[in-house]
Amino acid sequence: MAVVKACKILITGANRGLGLEIVKQLSENSCPKQHIFATCRDPDGPKSEALRELVKKHPSAITIIRLESANKVGSLLGNNGLNLLVNNAAIVANGTIQTSSVEDMKNTFNTNVIGPLLIIREYLPYLQMAAKASGIPGMSSNKAAVINISTVAGSMTRMPSIYNQFPTLPYGVSKAGFNMLTVLAAEEFKADEILCMALHPGWVKTELGGDEATLEPKESVEGMLRVIGSLTEKQHGGFMDYSGETVTW
Amino acid sequence: MAVVKACKILITGANRGLGLEIVKQLSENSCPKQHIFATCRDPDGPKSEALRELVKKHPSAITIIRLESANKVGSLLGNNGLNLLVNNAAIVANGTIQTSSVEDMKNTFNTNVIGPLLIIREYLPYLQMAAKASGIPGMSSNKAAVINISTVAGSMTRMPSIYNQFPTLPYGVSKAGFNMLTVLAAEEFKADEILCMALHPGWVKTELGGDEATLEPKESVEGMLRVIGSLTEKQHGGFMDYSGETVTW
Ligand SMILES: NC(=O)c1ccc[n+]([C@@H]2O[C@H](COP(=O)([O-])OP(=O)(O)OC[C@H]3O[C@@H](n4cnc5c(N)ncnc54)[C@H](OP(=O)(O)O)[C@@H]3O)[C@@H](O)[C@H]2O)c1
Ligand SMILES: NC(=O)c1ccc[n+]([C@@H]2O[C@H](COP(=O)([O-])OP(=O)(O)OC[C@H]3O[C@@H](n4cnc5c(N)ncnc54)[C@H](OP(=O)(O)O)[C@@H]3O)[C@@H](O)[C@H]2O)c1
Repeated sequence: MAVVKACKILITGANRGLGLEIVKQLSENSCPKQHIFATCRDPDGPKSEALRELVKKHPSAITIIRLESANKVGSLLGNNGLNLLVNNAAIVANGTIQTSSVEDMKNTFNTNVIGPLLIIREYLPYLQMAAKASGIPGMSSNKAAVINISTVAGSMTRMPSIYNQFPTLPYGVSKAGFNMLTVLAAEEFKADEILCMALHPGWVKTELGGDEATLEPKESVEGMLRVIGSLTEKQHGGFMDYSGETVTW
Repeated sequence: MAVVKACKILITGANRGLGLEIVKQLSENSCPKQHIFATCRDPDGPKSEALRELVKKHPSAITIIRLESANKVGSLLGNNGLNLLVNNAAIVANGTIQTSSVEDMKNTFNTNVIGPLLIIREYLPYLQMAAKASGIPGMSSNKAAVINISTVAGSMTRMPSIYNQFPTLPYGVSKAGFNMLTVLAAEEFKADEILCMALHPGWVKTELGGDEATLEPKESVEGMLRVIGSLTEKQHGGFMDYSGETVTW
């Protein structure tokens, strides 16, 4: 298994669901040099209790960060920058052409597209720092990478066949926009050798995925970390799932 | 040339650019049964003067409608419904990951995605009426169709290669979302036999396309009307350009 050897890692939506499981698995394999910044919007609230418990087990490996406190992260990162940014936070909203509310359209777009855009922009200087500091040519998630957790619901070729079962138009539209953000970030950061790609976690039992989902967070995240650890410039700007399969746009 | 024989046609953003040229060419070939609803947001303003002039030439074939006056259109349509809805209105905004403003992200999304969503929803009963009234099986733009004017800037496979020359991230992200809207509308309206597809006009000399564009509105619209007139259920849910070529997502 290709292990994620990135030193400095930041994950959004880290207090529950897939984000929490990513922090958990990374902290279990953590090397002394590794540090995980687990961001969430309410670090002290009830929904972040599991994350706080996890930090008690690995106090030197994980720091909880209130979302959008890039300054604090910056001061903790030091001169080697940020190696791996995982844009995981997102919301889902149900609806069809006939029923989607304007509010849901706006909220999903704000959280799933504008949010990650601002996060990427905020941490870009630290990613550039890490890419420069590495000294190794090419791209990898150990050097400098942005992994955008997307979904097949954002794929023009895959979403229609699941739309009857999952009429989540606002979510699908926002994730298609998020995929465009990913390919444009990839284009923009190519010269900096910062790897960018979109990753589908599978259908996973979380609050978002629901109880009928086919995968446990453990299996999905094991797969995603395997994929993330093995990425090279060949996957730059691409779209894959947790099993390593390419997803068509 | 496959002519657009749809009887009742509605076009958004009809006061200038490609929308105005679509109205112009349709009214030139217009059959007595045909009627064009040319919608714009300011029918009486200076930017709609060319459209008002055009109506003077074809008073019985064109009605100018203030955007979102579906009730008025409804009362004018009668029992045969609306055959062809062309979602053409849109705005462009420049920006990269590093420079795109939140305001531009929101404005492009509102105009280019939420706007058409509400238009489609508003006219859906009239499109369903037309599909039922036609009596002919299958799909065509003469029976009942939604044509979404999209762009290669909304294509994940095409946009990266033009992004350096046209750093229009907010526009590209919104049009990728618009493409998702198109494929989901296609899925949702399949049973109603309402044809839905996305159409790229080429790079055209308009306010949006700029002076360096390679095509005149005349050539682009001739091509688009040829494509629209020849559509069948085979193109349902697809993405084509003005010359009839398939655009990859
Ligand atoms: N589960 C699946 O089957 C599945 C399938 C495909 C893709 N995905 C993707 O996987 C990612 C993680 O999903 P999940 O299943 O783990 O979802 P989840 O259990 O619902 O967790 C969502 C996370 O995002 C955070 N979040 C939501 N809105 C936010 C906002 N406005 N600002 C900041 N943080 C916000 C939540 O924080 P709070 O606790 O503060 O709300 C939470 O940490 C998402 O990108 C999702 O689209 C999931
Ligand atoms: N030109 C190109 O090279 C090119 C290339 C690819 C795709 N396209 C697409 O082709 C379509 C037409 O573009 P164009 O070149 O004809 O653009 P244009 O000349 O700038 O015309 C845009 C039209 O959209 C209307 N509009 C803009 N914002 C609106 C809003 N918020 N509400 C209602 N109407 C609004 C404008 O009305 P006002 O006069 O009231 O502003 C105008 O009628 C667009 O969907 C565009 O994305 C164009």
